Amino acid sequence: MVKFSANARAMRSSAIRELLNVAVRPDMISFAGGMPNPSLFPIEQVDELYRSLTLEQKQVGFQYGPTGGYPPLVESIKNYLKKKNLPLEGNDLMITTGSLQALNLLAKIFIDPGDGIVTEDPCFIGGVSAFVSFQARLAGVPLDADGMDLDAFDRAVESLPHPPKLVYITPNFQNPAGIIYSRERRLALLDRLRCIDTVLLEDDPYNELYFDASDKDLTTPLKVLAQEEIPICYTGSLSKIFGPGMRIGFLLAPKQIIGKCELAKQSMDACTSTFTQVLANAFFEQGMLKPYVETLRQAYKRRAEIMLGGLKEHMPKGVKWNTPKGGFYIWVELPQHIDASQVLKVSVAKGAVFVVGKAFDPQGTRNNFIRLSFSHTPESKISRGVEIVSQAVSEFL
Amino acid sequence: MVKFSANARAMRSSAIRELLNVAVRPDMISFAGGMPNPSLFPIEQVDELYRSLTLEQKQVGFQYGPTGGYPPLVESIKNYLKKKNLPLEGNDLMITTGSLQALNLLAKIFIDPGDGIVTEDPCFIGGVSAFVSFQARLAGVPLDADGMDLDAFDRAVESLPHPPKLVYITPNFQNPAGIIYSRERRLALLDRLRCIDTVLLEDDPYNELYFDASDKDLTTPLKVLAQEEIPICYTGSLSKIFGPGMRIGFLLAPKQIIGKCELAKQSMDACTSTFTQVLANAFFEQGMLKPYVETLRQAYKRRAEIMLGGLKEHMPKGVKWNTPKGGFYIWVELPQHIDASQVLKVSVAKGAVFVVGKAFDPQGTRNNFIRLSFSHTPESKISRGVEIVSQAVSEFL
Repeated sequence: MVKFSANARAMRSSAIRELLNVAVRPDMISFAGGMPNPSLFPIEQVDELYRSLTLEQKQVGFQYGPTGGYPPLVESIKNYLKKKNLPLEGNDLMITTGSLQALNLLAKIFIDPGDGIVTEDPCFIGGVSAFVSFQARLAGVPLDADGMDLDAFDRAVESLPHPPKLVYITPNFQNPAGIIYSRERRLALLDRLRCIDTVLLEDDPYNELYFDASDKDLTTPLKVLAQEEIPICYTGSLSKIFGPGMRIGFLLAPKQIIGKCELAKQSMDACTSTFTQVLANAFFEQGMLKPYVETLRQAYKRRAEIMLGGLKEHMPKGVKWNTPKGGFYIWVELPQHIDASQVLKVSVAKGAVFVVGKAFDPQGTRNNFIRLSFSHTPESKISRGVEIVSQAVSEFL
Repeated sequence: MVKFSANARAMRSSAIRELLNVAVRPDMISFAGGMPNPSLFPIEQVDELYRSLTLEQKQVGFQYGPTGGYPPLVESIKNYLKKKNLPLEGNDLMITTGSLQALNLLAKIFIDPGDGIVTEDPCFIGGVSAFVSFQARLAGVPLDADGMDLDAFDRAVESLPHPPKLVYITPNFQNPAGIIYSRERRLALLDRLRCIDTVLLEDDPYNELYFDASDKDLTTPLKVLAQEEIPICYTGSLSKIFGPGMRIGFLLAPKQIIGKCELAKQSMDACTSTFTQVLANAFFEQGMLKPYVETLRQAYKRRAEIMLGGLKEHMPKGVKWNTPKGGFYIWVELPQHIDASQVLKVSVAKGAVFVVGKAFDPQGTRNNFIRLSFSHTPESKISRGVEIVSQAVSEFL
C-alpha cells in the first residue's frame, strides 16, 4: 500500500550490526565497530568543564543555535584548522551533526539521480550509503599502499557519461584500508583534479591519530597542498578526538557551497545540538584537546602493535595486511577464492567478530577482505581475538 | 562553475533570521523566535541529574548509539506515549535529531520530484522547507478556528494529479496560527483520509502546552482517534518540554515506514546525540518532566494573557487575532491591503520584531498576517512590544 520514493528504493544499509547479520554474544571479542573504547573517553575532563560552565553558557546550550554552528565553537575549530594551515580565506566553516551529515548534505546539494561520484575502493560505508541514498552512480578506484591507483582513477572518470560531481577520498588512515596517501600521490591526484570539472570531497576524521610524531607531516590535507586551485570540501569530526555521542563534525568549503549546505541543514535538523557544542567548545578553550589526543595516539599505537603481533604469530601464509601508521584499522587480504562471509561464520562460532570486505565495496560484491578494528576491543583480548580469526581463516586454506 | 542539484535549486530558507532580513539590535523586543525563554530551561534539574549519572551511563553518552535511539529513552518515550493512549502495537518508535528531522526523513522516503503534499495554510516553515527540498508540490488548505477547511481540503486533493503522498497537519496549537483542531474536525478529517491513498503526518510538538487542565482532552492526537485504520506518522519533540539545544524528537509510525526512516537516518547522521539522549532519559526516569511542564503551562498562559491584554488595548480596529488555548503563538490578521513586510520595517525602527505571514504561506506570497510569539520575550517587555507593533500597524490604516 505504502509506496516509497526512488531515493528510498536506492538506499543501502550502513549499519555494521546488520552487515554482520549475527547475534553478538556478550563474550564475543569484537573487531567490528570503528569506535573508541569507552575507557578512552575524556569523562573526567568533561565532568570538570561541566562544573565550570556559567548559567548563561548552559542556557545557550539548551537553546536553538545558528544552523552553521555555535559561534564560539566555529571560532575554536577555525583556529584549530588554521594551525594546520588549512585555508580559511574564501572558505566558510560549518558545524554538522557528525561528519557523516556533511557527506549527506553535499550529496543532497550536488547529486541528481544518476550523477557520478568517484570513490575509493574499498570505501567508507557511511559515504557509500549517503551517496546512493540520492541515487548517485559510484565508480570505485582501487587503493594501493600510497592511495588511489591513478590509472584506475582515469578509467573510473572515463567510465562515467559526465565528469563526476564529487571525488570522495579519505587520505589519512583510510577506513577500512588503513593506509595513508603518500605526498607524491596527493600531489599527483591534485594534478588530475585540476583537469576535471569536479569537486573534491576530502574526509579526514582520523587526521590527529598518527602513532608517531615524526609522521605528523604525512597527514597534511590535500586542501592545504592544493592552494585553492580546485574546489575542495574538507570534512572533519570530533567523534575520534572527543566522542561520537556528541555528534559533532565540521565542513570547511568554498562559501557558495557552505551557503547551500546551510540551507539544506536548516530543513534537516535546524542545528547540531547546542548542548554538546558548548561542551566541545569548552574542551577546546580549556586546552584539553592536545593532552587528550596524545594519550589516544599512544593507546591506539599500542593496540595496533598487539594486533600486528597477533597476525604475525597466528595468520596462515598467503594472507596479507597493512601496517597502519595511525587510525583504527587493519585491512586483511585473503586469497581470492576465500569468501569472508564464510570465514565470519566460523569466527563468530569460535567467539570473534569483524566486518566482511564486501561491505566496503562500492559495488557490494568483492569479498576476500576483512576489516579488523583495534580501537574498541579491550587491549587484553586483542591477541586472543586475532588467534580466533586466524584459525577461522585457516579452515579455508 | 559549481553546479547544484535540482533539490538544491528547489530549497527555500526556513531561517527566521533571514526572513526578517533586518539587523536585530540587542534592545529590540522580539516576538520572532518560536523558542522558550532561556529563564525557563530546567538547568538546575539537569545539573542534579548530571551529578547522578554513573560512569557507565556517561560512557554510553560518549559513544555511538543505535540509529533508532538510545534504548532506555525509546522505552521512556514509549511509556510516555502509552499513557496518552497512542497505539504502540503495529508501530515502531524512533528518536530523531529534533522532530524536524522526522519531517525530512519522511519527505526523503516518500517524495519523488513533483509529488504532492497537502499542507495547512499557513504552515510550519520547517515543514515547507523540508518538503520543497525534495521538490514536493505543496497544496495548502486554509485553516479556520477549528482546523483545516474540509471543502478546501477536497479541492486541494483534487488539484493534484495523483493522491498526495503526505497530508501534513499540526493539530495542537498550530505554528503559526495558534489554533487547536476541534474534536469534530479531527474526526471529519480522518473520514476524508480513509478514502484517499495517502499517509497522514501528524506533527505534535506543542501537545503538552495547553494552558488549562480542562483543555487537556482537546489535545488527543488523531493517531489516537483513528484506531489505526489509516497510516499515521506521529512526530513529537522534547524541544518545548526539555530544550531545543538537546535536538531530540521522535517519530511513531507503522513499522515498515520506521524501517525506511532508520535506513535514511543511518546515512544522515548515524544517530542522534547519545549524550543528550542519556540526559533526557534521566529527566524522564527521575520524574522531572511532569512538574517541569506544569511550570511551563503556567508561564506560557501568563505570557499569552499579557499579550492578549496588550493587543486588546493597543491594536487598531479592523485587526483580528486568535485567543490561544496553548502553545507559543498569536496569529494576527491585518486588513487585506496591508503588507506585513512594510509593517515590519516600521515596527523594527520603533524597536519590536515579529515574523511576516508570507513566511508561512506554502506558496510564499500572502502577506497580510503577522506571527507574534510570546514564548521567548521577557514577560516585562511583552506589553510594550505589542504597543509598538500596534502603532506600526496603525500607520497603515
